[in-house]
Amino acid sequence: MAGNTLGQIFRITTFGESHGPGIGIVIDGCPPRIPLSPQDFTQEMARRRPGQRPSDSPRKEQDHVEILSGVFEGLTTGAPICLYISNRDADSSPYKILGQVFRPGHGDYTYFKKYGHFDFRGGGRYSARETAARVAGGVVAQKILEPQGVSIMGYTMELGGIRAVHMDLRAAKDDPLCCPDRSASKQMQEALDEAKRQGDSLGGIVEVKVVGCPPGLGEPVFDKLDADLAKALFSVGTVKAVEIGAGFGAARLKGSENNDPIDPRGFRTNNAGGILAGISNGDDIILRVAIKPIPSIKKEQDTIDREAKSRKITLSGRHDVSAIPRIIPVLEAMVKIVLADHYLRHEALKRYDSKNTP
Amino acid sequence: MAGNTLGQIFRITTFGESHGPGIGIVIDGCPPRIPLSPQDFTQEMARRRPGQRPSDSPRKEQDHVEILSGVFEGLTTGAPICLYISNRDADSSPYKILGQVFRPGHGDYTYFKKYGHFDFRGGGRYSARETAARVAGGVVAQKILEPQGVSIMGYTMELGGIRAVHMDLRAAKDDPLCCPDRSASKQMQEALDEAKRQGDSLGGIVEVKVVGCPPGLGEPVFDKLDADLAKALFSVGTVKAVEIGAGFGAARLKGSENNDPIDPRGFRTNNAGGILAGISNGDDIILRVAIKPIPSIKKEQDTIDREAKSRKITLSGRHDVSAIPRIIPVLEAMVKIVLADHYLRHEALKRYDSKNTP
Amino acid sequence: MAGNTLGQIFRITTFGESHGPGIGIVIDGCPPRIPLSPQDFTQEMARRRPGQRPSDSPRKEQDHVEILSGVFEGLTTGAPICLYISNRDADSSPYKILGQVFRPGHGDYTYFKKYGHFDFRGGGRYSARETAARVAGGVVAQKILEPQGVSIMGYTMELGGIRAVHMDLRAAKDDPLCCPDRSASKQMQEALDEAKRQGDSLGGIVEVKVVGCPPGLGEPVFDKLDADLAKALFSVGTVKAVEIGAGFGAARLKGSENNDPIDPRGFRTNNAGGILAGISNGDDIILRVAIKPIPSIKKEQDTIDREAKSRKITLSGRHDVSAIPRIIPVLEAMVKIVLADHYLRHEALKRYDSKNTP
Amino acid sequence: MAGNTLGQIFRITTFGESHGPGIGIVIDGCPPRIPLSPQDFTQEMARRRPGQRPSDSPRKEQDHVEILSGVFEGLTTGAPICLYISNRDADSSPYKILGQVFRPGHGDYTYFKKYGHFDFRGGGRYSARETAARVAGGVVAQKILEPQGVSIMGYTMELGGIRAVHMDLRAAKDDPLCCPDRSASKQMQEALDEAKRQGDSLGGIVEVKVVGCPPGLGEPVFDKLDADLAKALFSVGTVKAVEIGAGFGAARLKGSENNDPIDPRGFRTNNAGGILAGISNGDDIILRVAIKPIPSIKKEQDTIDREAKSRKITLSGRHDVSAIPRIIPVLEAMVKIVLADHYLRHEALKRYDSKNTP
Repeated sequence: MAGNTLGQIFRITTFGESHGPGIGIVIDGCPPRIPLSPQDFTQEMARRRPGQRPSDSPRKEQDHVEILSGVFEGLTTGAPICLYISNRDADSSPYKILGQVFRPGHGDYTYFKKYGHFDFRGGGRYSARETAARVAGGVVAQKILEPQGVSIMGYTMELGGIRAVHMDLRAAKDDPLCCPDRSASKQMQEALDEAKRQGDSLGGIVEVKVVGCPPGLGEPVFDKLDADLAKALFSVGTVKAVEIGAGFGAARLKGSENNDPIDPRGFRTNNAGGILAGISNGDDIILRVAIKPIPSIKKEQDTIDREAKSRKITLSGRHDVSAIPRIIPVLEAMVKIVLADHYLRHEALKRYDSKNTP
Repeated sequence: MAGNTLGQIFRITTFGESHGPGIGIVIDGCPPRIPLSPQDFTQEMARRRPGQRPSDSPRKEQDHVEILSGVFEGLTTGAPICLYISNRDADSSPYKILGQVFRPGHGDYTYFKKYGHFDFRGGGRYSARETAARVAGGVVAQKILEPQGVSIMGYTMELGGIRAVHMDLRAAKDDPLCCPDRSASKQMQEALDEAKRQGDSLGGIVEVKVVGCPPGLGEPVFDKLDADLAKALFSVGTVKAVEIGAGFGAARLKGSENNDPIDPRGFRTNNAGGILAGISNGDDIILRVAIKPIPSIKKEQDTIDREAKSRKITLSGRHDVSAIPRIIPVLEAMVKIVLADHYLRHEALKRYDSKNTP
Repeated sequence: MAGNTLGQIFRITTFGESHGPGIGIVIDGCPPRIPLSPQDFTQEMARRRPGQRPSDSPRKEQDHVEILSGVFEGLTTGAPICLYISNRDADSSPYKILGQVFRPGHGDYTYFKKYGHFDFRGGGRYSARETAARVAGGVVAQKILEPQGVSIMGYTMELGGIRAVHMDLRAAKDDPLCCPDRSASKQMQEALDEAKRQGDSLGGIVEVKVVGCPPGLGEPVFDKLDADLAKALFSVGTVKAVEIGAGFGAARLKGSENNDPIDPRGFRTNNAGGILAGISNGDDIILRVAIKPIPSIKKEQDTIDREAKSRKITLSGRHDVSAIPRIIPVLEAMVKIVLADHYLRHEALKRYDSKNTP
Repeated sequence: MAGNTLGQIFRITTFGESHGPGIGIVIDGCPPRIPLSPQDFTQEMARRRPGQRPSDSPRKEQDHVEILSGVFEGLTTGAPICLYISNRDADSSPYKILGQVFRPGHGDYTYFKKYGHFDFRGGGRYSARETAARVAGGVVAQKILEPQGVSIMGYTMELGGIRAVHMDLRAAKDDPLCCPDRSASKQMQEALDEAKRQGDSLGGIVEVKVVGCPPGLGEPVFDKLDADLAKALFSVGTVKAVEIGAGFGAARLKGSENNDPIDPRGFRTNNAGGILAGISNGDDIILRVAIKPIPSIKKEQDTIDREAKSRKITLSGRHDVSAIPRIIPVLEAMVKIVLADHYLRHEALKRYDSKNTP
């Protein structure tokens, strides 16, 4: 049973490969009468688009989102919304020799083992290009969250081992690396430049903060809000760890330190990260995500081919030096999609109650 | 839409509260003709059962698993398997005053906000008692994995800030704290004793290792194996972080360091933690989980009541000092359940292929 | 992937076999704060219980419903509700020789082919006994529908070829065969007596009428209300046909005859049977279901055994002469369960809209 | 929760409206390495295409199927397959006045009630045009069934009250109305011509026969094969009744007549219609479907507008006189899609068994 669908009420299905005709997303379960137009996607798609920073892949894609269905006279109809993004600047030539040799750190080996056949051009289905469809989906999710006063923001906490210390979230919005610490951002950029010179790549840590989430979202005991957020974030290719609130730090606290005391104005601390027993508690939701260094590097690497013979590989395609910052709108989109789904899931049952209780 | 079901082919649904008649699990999708008897559950249930160690809750439960359906003449039939565990030693008396006052770090507050009504006795649905049903489910999942040579083992990497250094996994099996390092285990026990004296509690880190997992498990792009494992682990109440392979460490490596070079005998390193592009690569799967300190402590805490008035609370129920080690069989069970499901999901499509390709 | 779960928001899973310890149902997604007690089940369970009429199986079951979870202080909590019914008068002795020989018209042959192993005692999983759990589920669904003014009623339209002509639905409530036509009911009873003497069985037609269903229920294009009702009804073992509104009659009408003209007070006719384009239109929903004669008969029949050798079989277990009228509360329950689910599904999205549109 | 997805392992999602940019289908769960090219769709799409017979809508659509994803080097990859069909000859001009006035027998009224907003041009989402995407999906399902020797064929049993008597299924393949009885076909054509002259429309009955279905398909107790087939058929807009095997006829038989005796060569009769206890028994699967007359007629009809005022309506769009025969490939496609899904579902568990049982 394949796994290209996520969510229960607000449910997304993505399709498409890096070097096929295009990529897309079908959203089933978007409420009707929400204004939606192609222009709504421009800003978010631009944030994820390659070719904007020196450390980005030089691939140029307009990433124009076409609305193929589900919208009439500028409003969603309740029917499935198909959003489609053509692939225009797909250059498959560097990939000719690939498909025989497994690139270390990539899905080549596992896709071959699983499917016995795979589209190796630019990573095919497991290319980061698939995430453009997720960003488009996140724009629609945002339309559900915004009227509820929920806002989501991701920013770079660490890159190449350099950590943000001063936390100025407004500064992060304008920073080319989405870093809330200007001086750390400069050092990060130098680290990126150096890695690029070396033909290498860097990883880092992104924090995503949700402000204004109402209490009550999350469906225990399995579809807890943190569980579904973790799944959605881990479904992004380069994520190797997720923590919520105090995260690994909580393992070193005592109960008396980690419990967040409650007073009439709310929780005094937020070690829980906004989620208690799998349900949002009304406080900020804080998620931290470890991003591995991009596996496509120009340095020579040892690997094997389809016949399991030793091979050397040197990659020449167009790659970013780090998934950060382009991955940030993708992580935000995943959080938005999960929250929109859980918002509607909670409404389904909550509303019944309010209507039937005297 | 409620969330008490997990999995697609091997699909579990749990029910029951800490102080109701009992707890149970329905497993739908277990293949037929697998030997299963009540005795199969004894050992795993014993590992999770309270009242065995000085740091455990003194609640005594036999945790005898009744098979209510799905087994005939000692074999599974393909029909849903309902496993049921009666609550015998449920003592609700200490909880009388609760339900008015929200215990910090517990689900009281969020359940009240979400449902407007909740079973506060011993945590009701959000009690750790619910996890006994998961352990029973894990025993059935194990029956699917074992013939494939897959084995799963969890152990304590850290407790109360004390870290295991010597890694002797065989020692962990006999260690009362499931710690692979004898001398660290002793220090951990001292820390537990000290915390108990203080009326406080401790957290820690558990690692779960899967050996023998065949390559090919995992269903991109959303039901990736790591994404589904993370969700299942986060669905356990005390988990605040999950990392896979190098985890947060990967954020500080360069691509040339983090990529696992491949040679004809396999991967030379395992920073990936056994999962590449969301699909198992045949190497060991390595997961690390942060366990928060148990929120039930004997120290006085600040909180509020249902009318949002400030209150002091001092808990007198029967509680563990740490979720470790009793949580380890629960984490293992979740990993088993996810792997059994993904094994069957992969078979569904793989087998078709092998049958139809010349 | 096994199929013992039905519904999306109000989601049921049944378990149990005719001659195992008991049967049950887990309901996940019932809204919180609905009053529910064991007494709520008494009346509906009695309607389905065997041993009440001369044409019924003489098996005696109290069919007492235990609430194992999901209810606290007399109210649903939002947690899964497990309802359990012990099997007390299960007499497996007549089934000893079975399991070797396939009873014609029963699931013996197909269960053996599918699972290679089956619980043949009284039909095991494919026994009509499983439907007692559905009736219990219907009682909970009713609790959601009733406050909305929705009522569901089934009645016997035809039995053993005898058709109800006078339609007095109030009379059906008291009639031992749930027939709205007193004189037809007498003839039906005579036909049942005669079939019993012959060791044979009878089929018939049941109509289910839903009054007060609000417009807007149903989720095109696949989860249309009629599609989900048809599935739920066909999931009852003896159903061989389902029609809605004019049904097969619509095939012989012209568009000008079949279209239901609309005027300001509503639809002038109801050939649609209350469902247009898969969505309820506010009119009565009319469903007709063909019930096959019970396959367990006392007459000698030709069949084969597990080794595919010809065998004669004469059944001596305790069986009804007709599935009517005991099947009527089961069919009603399935309709209730589907409507409750669709009611909540529609609310999830409708409510969003009403809240966000100026 | 919206309902545009069908199936569990072989899972389809359709999108698109009659007068939007196009319609499409995403298939998730198609096994890898199946040959698939745009040419594979030509023949089936032609069978459903309008404008071929005098009684058809004069709308001309090439219905060319583009493969947007999931195929590489002519083989499926295991990734989701998106099939897309552009709308070219969409003429919205006759629909200008619509949207204010509800067409009797159409979804206008219920879509308006449900969504508060709808695409009324040509029926938008509830147009028969959506079924073109289903036919494309059926072509892929066929690729899974064909190697197993399963074939599916639909034919016209009745049209405008004229019944096929001589059953020559080979003749049905060439017959313009897919009728197995040449002389009945001529009368049906005359009835269509007469109805067209009158500005009216006709309904009928289609039988679908599955030959070669292996025993064991179907997942009790809810996802029974007949239940899922009935749902899939009822999800097609014009279907008002479904019967299996003897269907309504079974209601008038005695058990001794209706039970199909078994002998070593198989079942002697097929009243069951190839499905016993929800599982295929290896015999032919026989389904009969009532098709209502097309609601779009040229005769003047009474209706109301959005303000619930009485209105007269006369439709001038391009419409068929009967959904038969163009609906036949759609019904076949739905049967194929359900069978492919159930085939894979059964394999998932069956295969496990065969591998692990000595």
